[in-house]
Amino acid sequence: MKLTILGCYSATPRTFTNPTSQVLEMNNHIFLIDCGEGTQVELRRNKIKFSRIKHIFISHLHGDHFFGLIGLVSTFRLLSRDIPLHIHGPKGIKEAITLQLKLSNSWTDYPLHFHELTNTESEIVFEDEKVVVRTIPLQHRVYCNGFLFQEKPGDRTLLIDKVSDYDIDKVYYRAIKKGKDVVLDNGTVISNEELTDPPKPVKSYAFCSDTKYNEEKIPLIKDVTVLYHESTFLESHKHLCAKTGHSSAIEAATIAKKANVGSLILGHYSTRYENIELFREEAQTVFDDVEIADDGKVFEY
Amino acid sequence: MKLTILGCYSATPRTFTNPTSQVLEMNNHIFLIDCGEGTQVELRRNKIKFSRIKHIFISHLHGDHFFGLIGLVSTFRLLSRDIPLHIHGPKGIKEAITLQLKLSNSWTDYPLHFHELTNTESEIVFEDEKVVVRTIPLQHRVYCNGFLFQEKPGDRTLLIDKVSDYDIDKVYYRAIKKGKDVVLDNGTVISNEELTDPPKPVKSYAFCSDTKYNEEKIPLIKDVTVLYHESTFLESHKHLCAKTGHSSAIEAATIAKKANVGSLILGHYSTRYENIELFREEAQTVFDDVEIADDGKVFEY
Repeated sequence: MKLTILGCYSATPRTFTNPTSQVLEMNNHIFLIDCGEGTQVELRRNKIKFSRIKHIFISHLHGDHFFGLIGLVSTFRLLSRDIPLHIHGPKGIKEAITLQLKLSNSWTDYPLHFHELTNTESEIVFEDEKVVVRTIPLQHRVYCNGFLFQEKPGDRTLLIDKVSDYDIDKVYYRAIKKGKDVVLDNGTVISNEELTDPPKPVKSYAFCSDTKYNEEKIPLIKDVTVLYHESTFLESHKHLCAKTGHSSAIEAATIAKKANVGSLILGHYSTRYENIELFREEAQTVFDDVEIADDGKVFEY
Repeated sequence: MKLTILGCYSATPRTFTNPTSQVLEMNNHIFLIDCGEGTQVELRRNKIKFSRIKHIFISHLHGDHFFGLIGLVSTFRLLSRDIPLHIHGPKGIKEAITLQLKLSNSWTDYPLHFHELTNTESEIVFEDEKVVVRTIPLQHRVYCNGFLFQEKPGDRTLLIDKVSDYDIDKVYYRAIKKGKDVVLDNGTVISNEELTDPPKPVKSYAFCSDTKYNEEKIPLIKDVTVLYHESTFLESHKHLCAKTGHSSAIEAATIAKKANVGSLILGHYSTRYENIELFREEAQTVFDDVEIADDGKVFEY
């Protein structure tokens, strides 16, 4: 699991910071999460192959999270994309993108599918045999979802030496990897635990931006490997959190602690702060394993 | 008159080139012309003060000329702008911008005026006592206008020594600067030419992007100080011009020559070319005074 931060600052793009966008690589998928202005350039800078992006997840329709989407959709067309693109985001996103395509008289040549979200309860938005993606309803000034990306448990690992000892035919291997016991010709039952190791532990990633402090999401993100949680403000401005629908570093850390996550990544910093290390310092008064997102930073798990 | 090129490449923004946007400073106005994705960051990089931009002119609704507009409009709001902003562009631009503001639930706090263009004949889109701006109808794949920025002739320059010689009262100075003759108390007429020098020569700037080769605009841009004309293709790809509604370097130079302009600036290069100097070389086979636009380049006249 690999997370590339394309942008992690709030509000306006500047010469040295970008608004929210990130790329999650999980089981050969490349998921794009949020798409602030300039995302297509940051994708190039970080050498993410455009054609591998098949799903884009947009948390909410504030500009710093989606103004780069129309440019990316258009660039895909200019680059002669032919594979489908799925955009998951709040209701209204289809109208915003298609209106601009219509005005520029340039429809996409590739299949463009919108999956508009209106549900205020968590729901599955993507699923295949290896990965499932769910919304995490957040509390912001407009309708907003985080996204929970979870690997599904894989097969158990065959212990080849053991299997060979019992002279088991290969046709049974697939069933054994799925957890089946084996009955030998003489009627002896060999338990699956003797023939396999458990599957690799699954990894999970929860993206939570933008949101005010709210504990309702904790059951959903319980025990995730990594939680990205917005921390727009330091304690010195915590009085702004409720009004703006944002969280402080300490609030993000409190969620991380209560949800017992493996690791917390902070981001979505207000551009008023020059030293983002202060976010880590404040968060670590509550929760130990804190990382600081920054544009271009890569996290691997 | 000062022209700052924020971006001058066609199609898609890349890590090292920007789509079309430029800033023209003329008689204390700061006019923003086109607004591709990333324009607000380039404005910062070039230290253009946001609050001095009061008029934005959009040539047409292809993404590489206007996808940065919504971000700029939003950033103005976040920066607590209170002075009015005027946006001049093709019909549809108001709907595109206001829909996105509506979706993000963030109307501007400053007055935002749209001046939508539909006329296929040249028309005045802005005028004050010192400057007039007219559309230049262009021929592209969608409705498209260039813009002609012209200084108005200023007052004649008073020759103070001469005026003093005749002991003319100061109350007449304003009339003399406007070109009036003076009648002395004894009835003698002093011709204005004796008391003044002519006004400073006026400057003018014509922005023509995007367009296929078309001579209809020549009377409009006749004798301009500077012509910016798109040259998307070199001769090696001139067969693409008609189909895409673009011009070659030689076509741009031919327009410059026939319009007898002072200087030609080329831009809107296809991103397929690595060496943009070739555009100058080809254009100079037709017209001598050719400059090559590039992102961040400044031209002063």
